Parts: sequence; structure tokens; C-alpha cells
Amino acid sequence: MSNSFPPDSVGLVQPQLLQFDIPLTLRSGKVLEQFDLMVETYGELNRDRSNAILICHALSGDHHAAGFHNSSDKKPGWWDACIGPGKAIDTNLFYVVSLNNLGGCAGSTGPASKNPATGRYYGPEFPVVTVRDWVNSQLLLSDRLGIHKWAAVVGGSLGGMQVLRWAISYPERLAHAICIAAAPKLSAQNIAFNEVARQSISNDPQFHEGRYLDHGTYPKQGLMLARMVGHITYLSDNAMRAKFGRTVTDFEQTGSNFGRDLRTGELSFAFNVDFQVESYLHYQGERFSENFDANTYLLMTKALDYFDPSVDYDGDLSSAFANSDCKFLLMSFSTDWRFPPERSREIANALLKADRQVSYLEIEADQGHDAFLLPIPRYVDALKAYLLGVHEELCDAPRS
Amino acid sequence: MSNSFPPDSVGLVQPQLLQFDIPLTLRSGKVLEQFDLMVETYGELNRDRSNAILICHALSGDHHAAGFHNSSDKKPGWWDACIGPGKAIDTNLFYVVSLNNLGGCAGSTGPASKNPATGRYYGPEFPVVTVRDWVNSQLLLSDRLGIHKWAAVVGGSLGGMQVLRWAISYPERLAHAICIAAAPKLSAQNIAFNEVARQSISNDPQFHEGRYLDHGTYPKQGLMLARMVGHITYLSDNAMRAKFGRTVTDFEQTGSNFGRDLRTGELSFAFNVDFQVESYLHYQGERFSENFDANTYLLMTKALDYFDPSVDYDGDLSSAFANSDCKFLLMSFSTDWRFPPERSREIANALLKADRQVSYLEIEADQGHDAFLLPIPRYVDALKAYLLGVHEELCDAPRS
Repeated sequence: MSNSFPPDSVGLVQPQLLQFDIPLTLRSGKVLEQFDLMVETYGELNRDRSNAILICHALSGDHHAAGFHNSSDKKPGWWDACIGPGKAIDTNLFYVVSLNNLGGCAGSTGPASKNPATGRYYGPEFPVVTVRDWVNSQLLLSDRLGIHKWAAVVGGSLGGMQVLRWAISYPERLAHAICIAAAPKLSAQNIAFNEVARQSISNDPQFHEGRYLDHGTYPKQGLMLARMVGHITYLSDNAMRAKFGRTVTDFEQTGSNFGRDLRTGELSFAFNVDFQVESYLHYQGERFSENFDANTYLLMTKALDYFDPSVDYDGDLSSAFANSDCKFLLMSFSTDWRFPPERSREIANALLKADRQVSYLEIEADQGHDAFLLPIPRYVDALKAYLLGVHEELCDAPRS
Repeated sequence: MSNSFPPDSVGLVQPQLLQFDIPLTLRSGKVLEQFDLMVETYGELNRDRSNAILICHALSGDHHAAGFHNSSDKKPGWWDACIGPGKAIDTNLFYVVSLNNLGGCAGSTGPASKNPATGRYYGPEFPVVTVRDWVNSQLLLSDRLGIHKWAAVVGGSLGGMQVLRWAISYPERLAHAICIAAAPKLSAQNIAFNEVARQSISNDPQFHEGRYLDHGTYPKQGLMLARMVGHITYLSDNAMRAKFGRTVTDFEQTGSNFGRDLRTGELSFAFNVDFQVESYLHYQGERFSENFDANTYLLMTKALDYFDPSVDYDGDLSSAFANSDCKFLLMSFSTDWRFPPERSREIANALLKADRQVSYLEIEADQGHDAFLLPIPRYVDALKAYLLGVHEELCDAPRS
């Protein structure tokens, strides 16, 4: 990447650390006396402060949703496919705010931060945070930024769950809720995969009961395994077949350290990596484990498991939405087997039953759950069209 | 279980260890100079030796397919739902042979056996065995038992793959091939899950490069994790939902050691086990890890990964079946997402293209891949009806 960025990129961006000296009472009853949130913004806030869009990230996301931190960066932010001038979330029209959630490991206060009360890493002492806690902290962020009402709150997967929680908890604070590839709550299978991930991390001898940073180490193997399991659930069976089939690994091509003693096309008859899909997962898992905090991974998966806004309403999701006041856009992807279209339809049905305004779009896409991160034309076009409508509403609204 | 067994049980059975002092050249090129197979038989071999059925087991199966080893056994063999007097595989009509495959850990020669050449546990030195190697060893077993032609070779999952290999490699040695819930080869996703299982075993510090028995230990945590991943793929999402939903764990009920500090219905807000599905998987994984050899698990998953009979025929499965001479029954289960019905249809289509006689039945069942082990009426009735036909053929055949 040279100094010149693509014309539809937000270009160089500078994250900001915002400090909150406000005690935050969490769902668990514990209190965080103070916390930091790492934030990025793209585009310009209008005079009415009405064109702001909040981006909520998923399990492994962070504040860096679009653009580049350095001119030498090889990759842009995680949702650059959708955020930028002229893109679906058009930074020529909207002021886009993206943050690293509480408990994260990209600058916001989390287990890898030092506890100001003790001077030690929080580690396993960092409290379990829930989607509701995140939204409460995002509300404080909204107040800090002077945004009374978000034009839209947008997120995919775990991010979509935050969107739903916004619509339920703070109905007056958002005009549109855009919830992509999410579910109203995890299935037993979803929870089971999360528990496998947690076990693989906490069984790693380098985990040290979560105190690994004090030991100058980290549970690399465990986190790698957790990511491998996760990664399988993000890809569709078809996508994997198309990408790897049963091709025997070519070590040169993957750049992985695995399968070194294999020549292309030959099986090892040993416990080496034989197939490309294996070396791909190793490589992805290894890279991830070098860049993500294991305790954060545990926290994020528990937040997923615990999410179920119907719990306060005797299990009736539509009652949860009774006071919501925004319009909803739900989107799902045909081959997503982590949160399949049926799960988005459950949300749509609950919203319809609650008499809310909802649009639902199921996108044909081969890429599984990962599709929500990718520049799939029908998907980004639909998102763009919807947000153009949101922008028109803003322009039509009487000036306050 | 008292001394009296159900009338449709084969009752008390006695496994037999058969020793083979015949060198067996494996697919990898390595040679096993001698090996043992642990075998059980049920029913009586007829005068013509024509009523024998061979049972091929799946990943974690063994020779103990039906009946009880002791009057105090709580559970019968793994396929007792289908094998017994009057059952689908009727021991009043057939002589049923079941074995523990080479590389297994239930008595046949495998990594947990001592290498006669060194006096040490084979451990990681035990050669990688393939489906073809198993079928070759089963052929030697057939000869030993004096069975020239099996009335049927039957198996589910990895067992079904052995059935296909029999039909391809030894067409004159079986009359019927009954292949249940199998696939013509693993998908990239299947391989990926297997690799996660292997990694979780080999990353366990108690694995000791496969030499754990020499260290008086075993990779309990790794094997438990591997089994947890496997178990998720054996159950359908629906079956998990029906069985567990999002019920919070009740430690008394599961008998598990996990989640002890939880009261029913409350979340832990910690990294304890919160949901029943988690404690169930822990419990199953733990039990399994105490009873299965980790090196065997590695071997079995590699045999699955490597299976692809089309490889010798330029990828054309129907050519592989060109010389097959038996009739085929294929069965699959609607909610099996490990080896879904499409995969059985691939086999059926290849057989039709090769002009073979094939019956294919897709069973509506909620239980996922595990369905093939369960007494699902439509499934066992169909299997029974087919095998009655096989028995009639035997009665109609001219005596040799």
C-alpha cells in the first residue's frame, strides 16, 4: 500500500482513547469505577448532530472498522467493504462512530489492561460483561459525543445483538436498527461450540488461570484451537469446498510452517497437515492467537451465550420490543449455518407481532456467516439503498 | 441389569482374540509383521457358511456391537438397537461377526499394544492405517472364519466407508453392501473438524508426542475436547435444542463435577458451565477420555480424512464401482449434517452410473448423525425388511 489510498477509502484514520470516570454497574452486579473506550470516527457530524451511525463489532472485531492506521498497512479496517465515501455506509453522508467494546483488547479497558486499583493486569478479575453492559457503555459514549439520537445503530453477528439491545433499552436514542446475520439468542449448538473454545483456552498450560500476562506468556495453542473451531463455523461447507476441496497442502503457497515435509499431492501417512484446509486453519489460528487476548475471547463468547433479551419478558421476544420506537432492517445470508436465516426470521416475526416497522432481506451468498464482512454486491447495494432512505429522512426532518 | 436379559438380546457374549502371523502390507508401505483382532460373533453360521454378516465399526466403536459382557453391565454393545434375535440384523437368521479394527484400543493391535519387536508400547510408532488396510485385515479374518462370501457387509459412518471399500476391492466376497450415514469422501469441513480434534490431543502437555503410556499418563483434556467437538457434529441442531435448549445446568441432574457452584436457573457471570449442553458435553467428553486411546483417535480421524476410493480412478467414483458385484443399500438421515443425505446420494448416483443395483432410503429423523445408532422405527424396519430379503435369497440359492 503506497501513500495513495483508494478513492472510496476513508484513508488514514486516528483512533482516540476516551476516558470515562463514571462508575458503570454491570449486569453481574459488579461495578467498573472507571473505564476507557478506544474509538474511531469517519465522516463529519452535521449541524443537527443527527447523521451519526454507531457501528457495533462482533466477537473478534474492534474500533478499527475502516481505513488505514498507517500508509504501510496491508489491510484496512474490518468493515472497509461497507464503510467509506460512496460505500454502503457512506461517510460523505454520515458521521460513523466505531468503538472497541469494554472487555476488548484493542485499547478499551479489558482483561489485558491494568486495574488502576491494583496496578496489575485485570486478567481473570475483569468482570464478565454482557451485551447490555456494552450498550450501556455505548450510551455514555453517545452522551460524550453529544449524539442524542443515532440515525442508525448497525452491527453484524454479536454486533447485531447490540443493535437489538439498543432498540429495547433506549428506544428514544436511535432512529434505525440494522441487525445483520444475528440471532435472538444462541442455540445449544452455538453454546456448545463456544464452550469448546473456552475449554481449549483454559486447558492450555500457558493460561495460568487467566494470569498469563503476569507470567509473561499467553495460551497460544489454546487460542489458536479456539479460533480454528470458530473459523469453521464462520464458513459454509460450500465455501470451504470451493476454497479448499480436498487439495493436498502446498506449504509454499500457504506460507505456513505446517506440512513442510509434504510434496504437493502426496499424503503424509503421518499426523502432519495433509490438506490445504488444515494449513489454512492453522495459519489463521496462529495469526489470530498472536493478536488477540485470550481472556477477551472468553468474555466475548460468554456475552454471546448470555444474550437473550426475551428473558426479562417470560421468554416472549415480541414483548421485549413493545417499547421500541425505531425502524428495523434485518439481513441474513443463505449459507450462514452459525446464525441461519431462520434465526433472523424469528426476530422479524417477533417485531411484526409487536407491530414494529421491519424490513427483512435474505441474501443468497455462498460465504456462510462471514458473508456479512464481504463486499457481496446484493448485500452492500441493499444496505446502501436503505441508508440512503435513512439520509433522506434526515434531510426531510424539521431542523431542531 | 439382573441375570435375565431382554428376550431380543443376544445375551452374554464372549469376545475372542484372533492372532494373525501374516505380514500385512499397509497403504503407507509399512508392514505389520503380526497382529491380533478382537472379535465377537452372534448367532449361528449355517452349513453353507453363507449367512454371515460382517459389522464394520465407526470412529469410536469396537467389536462389542451387541449383548453384554457381564450380567452387571449397564449398557449393551454399541449397535444393540439393531442386532439380536428378531431385530433388524436378526441373529436367528444370520451369523454376525464384529471386530475391533486394527489400530483400535479395545483389544486389537493398536498404538496402546506392545510392539513385539521392541517390547514397548507402539504409541506414535503404530503406522497410519487406512480404510483399505482395515478391509484387507477383515479379508484375512474372513478366511480364518472360513467365510468365502459375506451375505452382507454392514456399517454406518466410517463403517459405511469400509463397506464401500469391500465392494470395490473384493467384489466376489460379498453379496450385499449396506452403507449407512456415510460419504464417498470427507468434505473440507469434515477434515477441518478432525484436524481440530487432532490438534487438541497433540497440544495436550500429557500427550508427550504420543508416548504418554510410557509416562504413565494420557492426554485427558485434549481427548475430552476432541470428543466434545466430535459430539457436536454428531447431533443435529434440532436434537440439541430439544434435548437442552438454553436450560441452565442442574449439577445434581447431570452428575457432572462442573457447575457445582450454580443454583438452577442462575447464570454464573463467571467462566463456569452455565448451560446444560455444556455440562453434558463435559460429562460425555470426560467419560470418553477415560475409556479411549488418544493415539487411536488420531488414527481413526486420519483414516476418515484419507478415504476417497475415487482417487485411483481419476476422481470418478462410478469407475471405482465398475467391478463391484454386490447389491447396495444406502441409507441416510434427514438432519445428519456430518454426512448429510446429499453425500449418500453422491454414492447412489455413482452406483447408478456404473449400472449397479442400488436401493437408497432417506430417513426422516431428528437425531443427526447419531441416528444410525438409535432404534428409530422406520430405520430399523427398513433395514430388517432388506435383510429378510437377503435371507430369502440365501434360502433360494442352490446348495453348494
